[in-house]
Amino acid sequence: MEPLQMTPIGWVRSPHAETSSIPTGPNAMHTAEGVLDIRPDLEAGLTDIEGFSHLYVLWAFHRSDGYDLMTTPPSDNRPHGLFATRTPRRPNPIALSVVELLRRDGHRLHVRGVDMLDGSPILDLKPYLSSVPEDRLRRGWLAEAEQDGKRRENEKCKIQNEK
Amino acid sequence: MEPLQMTPIGWVRSPHAETSSIPTGPNAMHTAEGVLDIRPDLEAGLTDIEGFSHLYVLWAFHRSDGYDLMTTPPSDNRPHGLFATRTPRRPNPIALSVVELLRRDGHRLHVRGVDMLDGSPILDLKPYLSSVPEDRLRRGWLAEAEQDGKRRENEKCKIQNEK
Repeated sequence: MEPLQMTPIGWVRSPHAETSSIPTGPNAMHTAEGVLDIRPDLEAGLTDIEGFSHLYVLWAFHRSDGYDLMTTPPSDNRPHGLFATRTPRRPNPIALSVVELLRRDGHRLHVRGVDMLDGSPILDLKPYLSSVPEDRLRRGWLAEAEQDGKRRENEKCKIQNEK
Repeated sequence: MEPLQMTPIGWVRSPHAETSSIPTGPNAMHTAEGVLDIRPDLEAGLTDIEGFSHLYVLWAFHRSDGYDLMTTPPSDNRPHGLFATRTPRRPNPIALSVVELLRRDGHRLHVRGVDMLDGSPILDLKPYLSSVPEDRLRRGWLAEAEQDGKRRENEKCKIQNEK
């Protein structure tokens, strides 16, 4: 069970200097704007990212230390297993946020929906695509429909060719 | 810039023994079933997780080594910045998947939608909660690549028809 080493790719610039100013709970609205300040040596890795409206941000709960297997989240008064919650106190204190990308300014990404503490280390960025279950369910028949469409087109091609 | 140490919370049991057997690209369907084999000492942390239909799985591309700032993904023939893709070759080789939770068997979670290699270390699990409405989502170069693909196919069809 070898530990894996992670190095920040950048840091969050956020209006939230303290956790108490970050809305929590299931209906929390995260409309704050901030900056994902990516290391200048990684700027080329951001090429074409501005074409995506939303990004996954993987970042570290850098002030969190240790974990409890059961935890009572702010949105409930009953304890739950830590993996069924988004508590910062986790074996690997990795956080996951979806933010809206407003614009890119070199190695700085201006984003909306910041629920991070100022200074949080960023571990990774990924385009937000469709790892959405609802989308997946629809992609089920959509993928079939697309394949059916392709099949029909190929058959049309064949009929045309045989004429 | 202190490195952060991550320790696996478990390992993926997947039918994919090699990356070549994992579907890639924008329309890839991940329907394979597998098991998230969480460490027995963390079992209590899974309490109540069975109430969620879908989970985020953060895991490590453990066979990946190093990264390139620009990369050409399987779904396109043009290079893009690594953070605008899901390439395994990243500064921190963390992967993110959404899986459907079929059932829990103690410290083992049976899931559908496994796009991981067998033996991949799991770093974290989170309940999948909310998503971005489709009408507010832009998919950058990927949407272009998909349209190019369709255009190329239509042109192929035209050429076939003109023969």
